Amino acid sequence: MLFKVEMIVKLPVDMPKDVADEIKLREKKYSQALQSAGKWRHIWRVVGSYANVSIFDVESNTELHDILSVLPLYPYMEIRAEALCRHPSSIHDNDK
Amino acid sequence: MLFKVEMIVKLPVDMPKDVADEIKLREKKYSQALQSAGKWRHIWRVVGSYANVSIFDVESNTELHDILSVLPLYPYMEIRAEALCRHPSSIHDNDK
Amino acid sequence: MLFKVEMIVKLPVDMPKDVADEIKLREKKYSQALQSAGKWRHIWRVVGSYANVSIFDVESNTELHDILSVLPLYPYMEIRAEALCRHPSSIHDNDK
Amino acid sequence: MLFKVEMIVKLPVDMPKDVADEIKLREKKYSQALQSAGKWRHIWRVVGSYANVSIFDVESNTELHDILSVLPLYPYMEIRAEALCRHPSSIHDNDK
Amino acid sequence: MLFKVEMIVKLPVDMPKDVADEIKLREKKYSQALQSAGKWRHIWRVVGSYANVSIFDVESNTELHDILSVLPLYPYMEIRAEALCRHPSSIHDNDK
Amino acid sequence: MLFKVEMIVKLPVDMPKDVADEIKLREKKYSQALQSAGKWRHIWRVVGSYANVSIFDVESNTELHDILSVLPLYPYMEIRAEALCRHPSSIHDNDK
Amino acid sequence: MLFKVEMIVKLPVDMPKDVADEIKLREKKYSQALQSAGKWRHIWRVVGSYANVSIFDVESNTELHDILSVLPLYPYMEIRAEALCRHPSSIHDNDK
Amino acid sequence: MLFKVEMIVKLPVDMPKDVADEIKLREKKYSQALQSAGKWRHIWRVVGSYANVSIFDVESNTELHDILSVLPLYPYMEIRAEALCRHPSSIHDNDK
Amino acid sequence: MLFKVEMIVKLPVDMPKDVADEIKLREKKYSQALQSAGKWRHIWRVVGSYANVSIFDVESNTELHDILSVLPLYPYMEIRAEALCRHPSSIHDNDK
Amino acid sequence: MLFKVEMIVKLPVDMPKDVADEIKLREKKYSQALQSAGKWRHIWRVVGSYANVSIFDVESNTELHDILSVLPLYPYMEIRAEALCRHPSSIHDNDK
Repeated sequence: MLFKVEMIVKLPVDMPKDVADEIKLREKKYSQALQSAGKWRHIWRVVGSYANVSIFDVESNTELHDILSVLPLYPYMEIRAEALCRHPSSIHDNDK
Repeated sequence: MLFKVEMIVKLPVDMPKDVADEIKLREKKYSQALQSAGKWRHIWRVVGSYANVSIFDVESNTELHDILSVLPLYPYMEIRAEALCRHPSSIHDNDK
Repeated sequence: MLFKVEMIVKLPVDMPKDVADEIKLREKKYSQALQSAGKWRHIWRVVGSYANVSIFDVESNTELHDILSVLPLYPYMEIRAEALCRHPSSIHDNDK
Repeated sequence: MLFKVEMIVKLPVDMPKDVADEIKLREKKYSQALQSAGKWRHIWRVVGSYANVSIFDVESNTELHDILSVLPLYPYMEIRAEALCRHPSSIHDNDK
Repeated sequence: MLFKVEMIVKLPVDMPKDVADEIKLREKKYSQALQSAGKWRHIWRVVGSYANVSIFDVESNTELHDILSVLPLYPYMEIRAEALCRHPSSIHDNDK
Repeated sequence: MLFKVEMIVKLPVDMPKDVADEIKLREKKYSQALQSAGKWRHIWRVVGSYANVSIFDVESNTELHDILSVLPLYPYMEIRAEALCRHPSSIHDNDK
Repeated sequence: MLFKVEMIVKLPVDMPKDVADEIKLREKKYSQALQSAGKWRHIWRVVGSYANVSIFDVESNTELHDILSVLPLYPYMEIRAEALCRHPSSIHDNDK
Repeated sequence: MLFKVEMIVKLPVDMPKDVADEIKLREKKYSQALQSAGKWRHIWRVVGSYANVSIFDVESNTELHDILSVLPLYPYMEIRAEALCRHPSSIHDNDK
Repeated sequence: MLFKVEMIVKLPVDMPKDVADEIKLREKKYSQALQSAGKWRHIWRVVGSYANVSIFDVESNTELHDILSVLPLYPYMEIRAEALCRHPSSIHDNDK
Repeated sequence: MLFKVEMIVKLPVDMPKDVADEIKLREKKYSQALQSAGKWRHIWRVVGSYANVSIFDVESNTELHDILSVLPLYPYMEIRAEALCRHPSSIHDNDK
């Protein structure tokens, strides 16, 4: 079951660089583990912004929230999740 | 080169059903040809809306506009295109 | 799996009353059948508006879209669906 | 008398964890007491957000304000209340 | 129990004058009957707009919706209702 | 001459309680003096918000600004003033 | 007593030219009479828009509404009025 | 060449009063010098807001930016400039 | 003197093709004449939209309005003009 | 391949002047190097704002993001990028 999730990161401008780097590193590892597991299907950078567009494939709303709410950057992000489903014109088997 | 494109369809409520059906049929064929050609990578329906979220893979801005501006539903759609690029956390080779 | 769905109805002001009444009657029957089946858990009128706030309980995003997109009033409504999940403070067993 | 209430929580990013935890604990207890009393009928988490959608059942506008304005998280929340009433299509006795 | 209600009137520009006049006359009579009954406490014109700001005093959300939804101009208005309650600084006995 | 004035209060979350209480007390006294003088005709709390809806009766735009700009909470408020006038349907002598 | 009034004109695209011209001519005469009388102090065109920014000098809110609501273009305009008063830095005697 | 310029002032709530007063005094002197020179034609206070509506008469876009960008309050203001020109209905020689 | 002008075209969906084509042809000729004259410096299509971003180089606000207000597509466009000036980092002689 | 990029700069009001000056100097040098290289085609100041409108000419979305994301002012800016392409009415060879 697919969701488009858009995340905008707003780190405080006075956060020490090493603190920010450590959070981003954990975020990256966590994201990559979820990508390997097939839960986080796609992640793209929005050009010119500290933001991403992602596609998640989860079993339920609850699973999506459980994944998002423990993101290391969660306290610093604005997140919008939008439920998707198969488009009748799609020819791609896994666009569902 | 990837773009997220969001399309909202607003057909006039008094458009005859056969006219609408004919436009939608052409839209579907055109979309599927572009999907087969690898240009229209993904298309998903937004739950509860006559709208889609799509990912296009094109050579240039011009190619994207040339594709979108001849969509049969083009005169009846609001379209927003957003440039994407590879996210440093992505592990998927083709998320670029 | 729960979704909050908000629907705003915008009938053309020149739609003949009997046409509107017939559509509304079918909408009502369809809504009540879904309520009886447990899919459409709640429906409330928004005070002062031709609009409702509803809670749906479905198996998947696809099921929700399949339900909404055949509503008799669908061509005349603005619909926004928002995915919900269990709140950690809830004491109600079925608020999930 | 029913109201849909949407609450978005915005804790300062530099609030010490134990301070935040203590406030959240009081919020939870207070919310659960009101749920037990039948005043706070439903509470759901919005997927991907530190926010909830709730349904309150109160005697008057005043009672609703009195409940909301002493929420432990009240100083850190954006709250929107919307008056609801029975929908003519509802088959649920208590959707009023 | 008080509500602030704001109404914006949008009559079709091609509505015949006598049709519009007849609707407005019924609206006026209905409004004045509700004012006499103490339900529609205040009504003011917004300067420069075909709009009003009103204060209603009703027993319940349902009563307010029942009043508003049969306004002769209802199909041509955008209406927003906002629940009010007594302000702790008020010295007016009936500002509640 | 009447104005609807809407005020939203945004106190800094780290303002000491005694400082806030002292400002609020002065605000209340000032508001009540203006109510007694007939200038501040109505004040209502917006349910669920640290905000009010008020009706002022003043001689001129200048008088209204002079009143509002010395409110003790003025530096912490967003204020919107909207000019009102008599509605042709009003039956209340002082709704002008 | 001064007000800034912004008017955006939206004539139906299918209004016959002679009908539009006749309305515009009456609008112009009415506007110029009010300018001569000192009520409509300034009127400027917004570059690139069928819109104007105006300054009115009136005795009361009511007088402003009475002037605006009989503008020949009134049914085709969006109007926003904003109350102004003397700025403490102004050196112009009549900027009040 | 005329521009409508709207300025909203947002001083930090913790700025010491003497610092704020010194900036405001310089702002006033600078504004009055420009008014005397005929560049800053009008300045009005927006009722209920720490904001102004102004009319500037300058030779070029560049001159306007050079004037605005050295305002003592510039770092604390949101500024919107809108190009104006003569309205065909104007009877005032200098409304251009 | 430079302005960024953004134009969004909204032709009625029922406008006959030959009428639309004739308007677009006149628009194109007029645009190209102004480009040749150096007044309309740049025009770009916005990808996915019937819209353009343009840069005009004019002597005054009035000249810009006179150019825009006789565009053949003017009655069908939303236009926003924004005044530009030289950026201190620019190395291009004519970016002014 | 062209993009319109709009940047709004929001430096913290308490940033020391020498820190700000050093960042701005690096921004200027970096911008001018990119202008010399033909990547940053145009940069204009928005009148009355600490903001610019720019045109970039890049090989890909990725190149644009790589350029923007290392701007010295990047952590302090809101950036919006919009893909452009050749307009059919353009007579300028390099408006593409």
